[in-house]
Amino acid sequence: MSARNLQVRMKRHPNGMVVEDDFSIVEADMPSVEPGQALVRNLFLSLDPYMRPRMDPVRSYVDPLKPGDLMPGATVGEVIDSKAEDLPKGTLVGTFLGWQTHGIVTKAGVRVIDRALGSPSSALGVLGMTGVTAHYGMLALAKPKAGETVVVTAASGAVGSIAGQIAKLKGCHVIGIAGGPAKCRYVVEELGFDACVDYKGGNLASDLNAAAPNGIDVYFENVGGEILDTVLLQMNIFGRIPVCGLISAYNATSVPEGPKNLRVVLTQRLTMQGLIVFDWADRVPEAIRELGAWHKAGKLKIREDVRTGGIDAYPDVLNLLYTSGNNGKLVLKV
Amino acid sequence: MSARNLQVRMKRHPNGMVVEDDFSIVEADMPSVEPGQALVRNLFLSLDPYMRPRMDPVRSYVDPLKPGDLMPGATVGEVIDSKAEDLPKGTLVGTFLGWQTHGIVTKAGVRVIDRALGSPSSALGVLGMTGVTAHYGMLALAKPKAGETVVVTAASGAVGSIAGQIAKLKGCHVIGIAGGPAKCRYVVEELGFDACVDYKGGNLASDLNAAAPNGIDVYFENVGGEILDTVLLQMNIFGRIPVCGLISAYNATSVPEGPKNLRVVLTQRLTMQGLIVFDWADRVPEAIRELGAWHKAGKLKIREDVRTGGIDAYPDVLNLLYTSGNNGKLVLKV
Repeated sequence: MSARNLQVRMKRHPNGMVVEDDFSIVEADMPSVEPGQALVRNLFLSLDPYMRPRMDPVRSYVDPLKPGDLMPGATVGEVIDSKAEDLPKGTLVGTFLGWQTHGIVTKAGVRVIDRALGSPSSALGVLGMTGVTAHYGMLALAKPKAGETVVVTAASGAVGSIAGQIAKLKGCHVIGIAGGPAKCRYVVEELGFDACVDYKGGNLASDLNAAAPNGIDVYFENVGGEILDTVLLQMNIFGRIPVCGLISAYNATSVPEGPKNLRVVLTQRLTMQGLIVFDWADRVPEAIRELGAWHKAGKLKIREDVRTGGIDAYPDVLNLLYTSGNNGKLVLKV
Repeated sequence: MSARNLQVRMKRHPNGMVVEDDFSIVEADMPSVEPGQALVRNLFLSLDPYMRPRMDPVRSYVDPLKPGDLMPGATVGEVIDSKAEDLPKGTLVGTFLGWQTHGIVTKAGVRVIDRALGSPSSALGVLGMTGVTAHYGMLALAKPKAGETVVVTAASGAVGSIAGQIAKLKGCHVIGIAGGPAKCRYVVEELGFDACVDYKGGNLASDLNAAAPNGIDVYFENVGGEILDTVLLQMNIFGRIPVCGLISAYNATSVPEGPKNLRVVLTQRLTMQGLIVFDWADRVPEAIRELGAWHKAGKLKIREDVRTGGIDAYPDVLNLLYTSGNNGKLVLKV
């Protein structure tokens, strides 16, 4: 156990992709444990697309980060010292301690993780934020019916891979959109989607039309930009578009153009609905139970991309999300 | 009674605003009445913003018009000859006979109008398509709660004026957006909105912010374009945006840019939902009963802009909708 708490803080607002100079590594004092609290050593930090826009100085669902702020994020850690009876040493917990090696928590601020459900890192993916996001977006918002056509972008990613598999479990015709033949093969052969369109192939509209001859009823949106514009033109009446992410714009250095085909929302009477997982906080235990049961039964395949190199590697690893550099849920081993 | 049936047909797809040469006036034979049918003489034709985009050769909620097609539209007419027991001579009916002086109907294809509820032309406005559209969009989709802030574009128009007054009846703080001081005065002084912002005033964002200091919970969208982009940045969490019209783009000669601020749908978890009134067909009688009762009780003010000049005037009158040239629900007296 290190005597110091290593932290990654935002030094300045980035311009485009993050670079090392956007961050500072700080060696803080190890926090002391007060009654009712526990000290957690983080084992895995989660890397998620939302992190980059959080660094922009613009209004979002929470206040933007200010220079000097600790980088936020979900972690899985272990209690290594405790003055809280309900969090004994050795307890595995899901936290929002952010990009640091250690942190102080209380029972109310963490989720105690059942080691029997999956690996510790899976509590950041299928059995954590990304799994619950997919579950919420697909089942509570999109509500696909058997036989409907569902399109999922970032289909090999942490959320998309789960969202698409859930739609398959509901009896839908599921089409992924992913970057490159290797990811597309994975989406079809490993995850069991009915088809996958390579958006880098240059024929998105016609490839999508071939894969979705009956039009699209649900579009699970992780990407935005030109892909959204293309999909809009193939949406069926009363289609649903849960908007989970707009990753194509997260590193933009100017405000990107909006979808030219927004009129389709009117003409096809679509429902487009933003989703952020913490609106679903009440249902997290239930969602994780269901996801865990599917995973255990072999019905929900996952892939994790676990990076090592310590907390210093964090900035570089973050960029992988925006360059299609990761394969599956991206986590950093602390 | 003319011995001929005068019709306005689309001659070609327009480019931008319609011109006379986009239409042809056809003198057709007076249709003959078969058993079970009635002959209707149209008294008023409805002019509505959807008409212009219907003339573009692009996918919409119905097939686009082809050159030679009769211009579609709602009408109010009177049965002048009948071989249908359930439609005796003199019956006032709401129809979709389109831009022609006469037409054949059956009972199943019309709405019989109760003359006691309002003037015949009101069956094209507050007690017809535009009233029901406002009722549906505001009450079934936006569902504003007392105390919420509601913004309505095209606030002096046929749909906007009713939508805003309904929100007032539900106890909301209602702000109109309209073009020019005269329309804004009308919206506040006559219709009873709490405020109205003149989008031509050059300070839309700050004027809107002053009128809606607590942010916007419901945005009833009739316009699109820059106004949508401006409103998006002031939407509150879980805001609702029924998309009833996007009139700013209806005469565009190239595909307009989309909203740059679409990310707000995600960050504020908005629900944007397209609406077309015929999805609400089952509820039309109920909606009209409620609208009629409010109107009768003086709680729902209306203004009609009744143009004369015969069916030949139709093309010119249509353009008024897109140039802010009308004042209230636009109808043409046949």
